[in-house]
Amino acid sequence: MRASRFLIATLKETPSDAEVISHQLMLRAGMIRKLASGLYTWMPLGLRVLRKVERIIREEMDRSGAQEVLMPVVQPAELWEESGRWQQYGPELLRINDRHQRDFCLGPTHEEVITDLIRGEINSYKQLPANFYQIQTKFRDEIRPRFGVMRAREFTMKDAYSFHLSQESLQETYEVMHRTYCAIFDRIGLAYRPVLADTGSIGGAFSHEFHVLADSGEDDIAFSNGSDYAANIEKAEALAPSDARPSASEAMTEVATADQHTIEQVAGFLKVAPEQTVKTLIVLGEAPEEGSAPLVALVLRGDHELNDIKAEKIEGIATPLTFAPEERIEAELGAGVGSLGPVGLTIRVLVDRAAAQLADFVCGANRNGYHLTGVNWERDVPLNDVVDLRNVVAGDPSPDGKGQLEIKRGIEVGHIFQLGTKYSEAMNARVLDENGKEKPMIMGCYGIGVSRVVAAAIEQNHDQNGIIWPQSIAPFQLALVPINPHKSPAVAEQCETLYQQLTELGVEVLYMDEDKARLGVMLANTDLMGIPHRLVVGDRGLEKGTLEYKGRRDEQAQDVPLEQVVEFIRERLAD
Amino acid sequence: MRASRFLIATLKETPSDAEVISHQLMLRAGMIRKLASGLYTWMPLGLRVLRKVERIIREEMDRSGAQEVLMPVVQPAELWEESGRWQQYGPELLRINDRHQRDFCLGPTHEEVITDLIRGEINSYKQLPANFYQIQTKFRDEIRPRFGVMRAREFTMKDAYSFHLSQESLQETYEVMHRTYCAIFDRIGLAYRPVLADTGSIGGAFSHEFHVLADSGEDDIAFSNGSDYAANIEKAEALAPSDARPSASEAMTEVATADQHTIEQVAGFLKVAPEQTVKTLIVLGEAPEEGSAPLVALVLRGDHELNDIKAEKIEGIATPLTFAPEERIEAELGAGVGSLGPVGLTIRVLVDRAAAQLADFVCGANRNGYHLTGVNWERDVPLNDVVDLRNVVAGDPSPDGKGQLEIKRGIEVGHIFQLGTKYSEAMNARVLDENGKEKPMIMGCYGIGVSRVVAAAIEQNHDQNGIIWPQSIAPFQLALVPINPHKSPAVAEQCETLYQQLTELGVEVLYMDEDKARLGVMLANTDLMGIPHRLVVGDRGLEKGTLEYKGRRDEQAQDVPLEQVVEFIRERLAD
Repeated sequence: MRASRFLIATLKETPSDAEVISHQLMLRAGMIRKLASGLYTWMPLGLRVLRKVERIIREEMDRSGAQEVLMPVVQPAELWEESGRWQQYGPELLRINDRHQRDFCLGPTHEEVITDLIRGEINSYKQLPANFYQIQTKFRDEIRPRFGVMRAREFTMKDAYSFHLSQESLQETYEVMHRTYCAIFDRIGLAYRPVLADTGSIGGAFSHEFHVLADSGEDDIAFSNGSDYAANIEKAEALAPSDARPSASEAMTEVATADQHTIEQVAGFLKVAPEQTVKTLIVLGEAPEEGSAPLVALVLRGDHELNDIKAEKIEGIATPLTFAPEERIEAELGAGVGSLGPVGLTIRVLVDRAAAQLADFVCGANRNGYHLTGVNWERDVPLNDVVDLRNVVAGDPSPDGKGQLEIKRGIEVGHIFQLGTKYSEAMNARVLDENGKEKPMIMGCYGIGVSRVVAAAIEQNHDQNGIIWPQSIAPFQLALVPINPHKSPAVAEQCETLYQQLTELGVEVLYMDEDKARLGVMLANTDLMGIPHRLVVGDRGLEKGTLEYKGRRDEQAQDVPLEQVVEFIRERLAD
Repeated sequence: MRASRFLIATLKETPSDAEVISHQLMLRAGMIRKLASGLYTWMPLGLRVLRKVERIIREEMDRSGAQEVLMPVVQPAELWEESGRWQQYGPELLRINDRHQRDFCLGPTHEEVITDLIRGEINSYKQLPANFYQIQTKFRDEIRPRFGVMRAREFTMKDAYSFHLSQESLQETYEVMHRTYCAIFDRIGLAYRPVLADTGSIGGAFSHEFHVLADSGEDDIAFSNGSDYAANIEKAEALAPSDARPSASEAMTEVATADQHTIEQVAGFLKVAPEQTVKTLIVLGEAPEEGSAPLVALVLRGDHELNDIKAEKIEGIATPLTFAPEERIEAELGAGVGSLGPVGLTIRVLVDRAAAQLADFVCGANRNGYHLTGVNWERDVPLNDVVDLRNVVAGDPSPDGKGQLEIKRGIEVGHIFQLGTKYSEAMNARVLDENGKEKPMIMGCYGIGVSRVVAAAIEQNHDQNGIIWPQSIAPFQLALVPINPHKSPAVAEQCETLYQQLTELGVEVLYMDEDKARLGVMLANTDLMGIPHRLVVGDRGLEKGTLEYKGRRDEQAQDVPLEQVVEFIRERLAD
């Protein structure tokens, strides 16, 4: 491609509303432009990257045996009423009326449409399993779209839906999809982790997220340094400590702590480590048929964080997890939230596994302005319900027993789910089994945020000069930069020759052929755009019979003899 | 592709709501399924065709120097207010509100978005000309969606927009696009005509439509048998007859014609040919500032049809063309619509060129129940305004002076326009010219209905057994059909070998590998799906060392020796 025929739309300044680096660099490199909040146009440079990501996904999905379809963006409300999601889905579902005042929505996902399609097409177990995917435009009316295409309202997604007679068949396809996703992110060339995830609101029993590792990620991932265990921090189990609890060595003593309420304040005041204290959080239990919800105490080590999802899964706890109002706490427990502790409580007390391991610990005295020191389980306070309540932290043992956990930040780019029969039951999508008996199809679903992959690749691969594309998805493979071609016919001629040669070999060259462009600007632009390889052609080099080559990650440029340059580039691209 | 892993969703019955053959065959072949009125899912078979059409369009657009972008489906109202189309566009524009109650629409076309983008990116004549295209999902809320994907609400369109400093530059790109469209439809393998078109409501001075010729087309196209002149019938000029008008030979006579009102009735009653009569249509002229619109008479030969668009373009005629109410005609002209004629009229009379050529003609007498015979222009009635008012008919001379016109029906699949400065003026999209002076960019726009091309290809290429795909866009190139493979290991083995061999050569094979499928059903399905080439493998042939080959358009199958079959297929595909 000749730069003179290509819209290079680089910006010197970082747009002020771009918070994350990928958003900044996509704007500065001229990959995208904002049309309105959460709506972006893909410019020629950006679209080349998006299409390469799409192509890799399509090839690997085809290889996996999935069949490509294309479903409409606009979906009729009737199907969402059948599944129950017309009511359940919040304002992220953009509801619209057509000219006849019929209800439709812009599809944020396509479970209903594919289930409707397949219940009409597949009626025998002989047609199963089957897996259908599309690469298609989705819309989610995010309350606060941000980070550019990372959390846009309109975006490109690969979504796939599989149909099965048995759980075993679903498990098989689920594993094929797991391998396919690994193949996709391997080919793109990203550092990523498949992690066990909570299934959230889509339902279903089992799911993995695929995270691109990057410091700017919104999710915390726990993974083992001794195995390939990885899980969203929400899902990772905190094992019970394997050692026995130390014996009690202090007497329980009430001390006045005045205005010290937080763990940091109390620990500092009493000169103990936060991990030698416990905090007591009061939440609501499930309400009985009549009367108000009981209070439940959750006790964690002072330095640990409550994991809401783990707490919600405990029987008898209200969902969603709800903290008790301060007035009720004061009235029923006799102290405020800064002075609570398990000793003497008559409500249900759930103790985290790590907190249960403490001896001689500090906690609130259930008397405003006082704490207890030297508290010991069983001696001073009963220990009945010991459960996993906290987020794992770095250094925790891996739940699979191999190695210790590390915590990294990740950007979720893919998600695979086992949906089960949630949609097929609701929408009556059934097949006849081997015995002629009707059964609801068992479903899986598998998504990749295609446009988000582009942003995540940048979050993981950039430096102070701009983007550094993995070779597989670079918009161009090589930038060809002439020095003063309008003054030197030899330079211009050599560039034309090289451009022809490389293009004929199938190399995607961006030839910076704009007559009077300044060298510094051209080099800054090709760096900003992240082009992996660069050749600079100048008179001085030509006199010696050399060109200057620099890889985007190289510290130094190097001279390459003219007669070897095509072979040299070919080798670089094959790496 | 193995049929056992591909959703073959053929139907025996023609769905009752499918009016046109392409809609029927796309449903029956399992290419599409209806989700809701005007909304279709592309099934695996159909999507393969759609993607091939897309690929050809993309390759030719890239070759033309156009740059691919991707704009959002959802567009903010503000831009449409700037262009004035938020008010002008009817209910086909689906207007929506987001969660913050801001106005948006689903894009039926992208002039506003691209103009907004480019006014931000291009500010110098040095960056011009530039041409941007996308292949993207559009939405038009048709009042009566029909004919399947031919007139759907959601559809895939290739739209391109070019920007220029001068009209000459626009003209150049316009011609490049004209050639590119020809290259696209040539490669797809369709019989088509680029035709001069009326520009309609998009505005602009000059446009061509690209029509696929098919009897089921909605548009009439006039084209010359002596040149490459072709025009939408709305646009084709009816030349003035070149001969002199015959002399008068009869006296003008009033005859009672009782209840004979239509041309057919009057001509039959008076035993003259309809082309020896004239009809007089009364329309409204432009209303003066005060008072009502004057009546205007349009006089055409009895066998000719009024062309509304030509009439509307005549100065002093109300737009849109409006026929006068019968009461006004009776009251002001003294006779009803079945008895009108030009003789003695005191209103403005416009006479079509062909009607002006008549001598001794028949017309209404402006007295109910009477007609005049032997009427002659100038002798009996003045002849002042002679204009082109009618649709051309087969046999008319071509407007370019070469050959005669034929009329065929066509399906519009592409449209290229010269937009001029309509959008750049309204939206203030300007560049600096060579002299540093600001000028509005001159624009062109270029559309192809991608999904409609698929339907049009079927309208043009089918028989009683189903679709007959042009090779370039066939979902598969070859069907490989075994006879009773579950009974004959030799047949199964030979098919596997051939499937491997042909697939390795890059042939797209649909291998009908479903164990116990009936031969008749498989052959009917491969015909219905329109696969261009077919090989049948059976024991009887293998004993002789032959396979049976049949091209989709062939009358007869032929035997091909086993050892020659790969080369035979390779030659067929190269044709």
